[in-house]
Amino acid sequence: MESSPFVETLVFNDQGLIPVVVQQVDTREVLMVAWMNSETVTQTLETGKATYWSRSRNEIWVKGATSGNHQRVISLAKDCDSDTLLLTVDQSGAACHTGNQTCFDDAVTHPEVSQ
Amino acid sequence: MESSPFVETLVFNDQGLIPVVVQQVDTREVLMVAWMNSETVTQTLETGKATYWSRSRNEIWVKGATSGNHQRVISLAKDCDSDTLLLTVDQSGAACHTGNQTCFDDAVTHPEVSQ
Repeated sequence: MESSPFVETLVFNDQGLIPVVVQQVDTREVLMVAWMNSETVTQTLETGKATYWSRSRNEIWVKGATSGNHQRVISLAKDCDSDTLLLTVDQSGAACHTGNQTCFDDAVTHPEVSQ
Repeated sequence: MESSPFVETLVFNDQGLIPVVVQQVDTREVLMVAWMNSETVTQTLETGKATYWSRSRNEIWVKGATSGNHQRVISLAKDCDSDTLLLTVDQSGAACHTGNQTCFDDAVTHPEVSQ
């Protein structure tokens, strides 16, 4: 798989990874943050299915391969430093492995948490 | 500054940092991704002003201290693994140091980028 010109502009960390913020296209909910290497950035763009690098399993992770909860790619943006990605998707089912819609269900509201 | 119970549940990386996705409360735009250490998580919650750890300057960075473009904290959530934060803010002025509203202005739409 040949890497795209887009991939070549990205700055990966010393593990060869880049963090990816995943946002649902219609509700604009932030669903999760995951990591990609250059290969999975390319694969994500070529297949249109969000594909990450699993740091815990140390392997390529096509989101939904096990759960069926795929993420269809709408767009991919990089930030001003080229070291973070924002992936806009259309999520099938729950994004989180816990079964929650997003991985950020544990919110605290300022200033309650500091009291 | 005493750390809050919330801070003590977080998982920091081997540099003592945690990534923070910053989202504008009304438009739900993802503005930027930055990093916090335990001290700046606590400071953010205590002051209600988004405060990060600058990896390039190696110092505490109160967002807007130089630019005036503060971020007023609305809420802070952690993800299912407790190793990523989602900070909801009300941003004054531009979020990005480039003067753009967000740091993610360089989007590509699937599948154009791979062609």
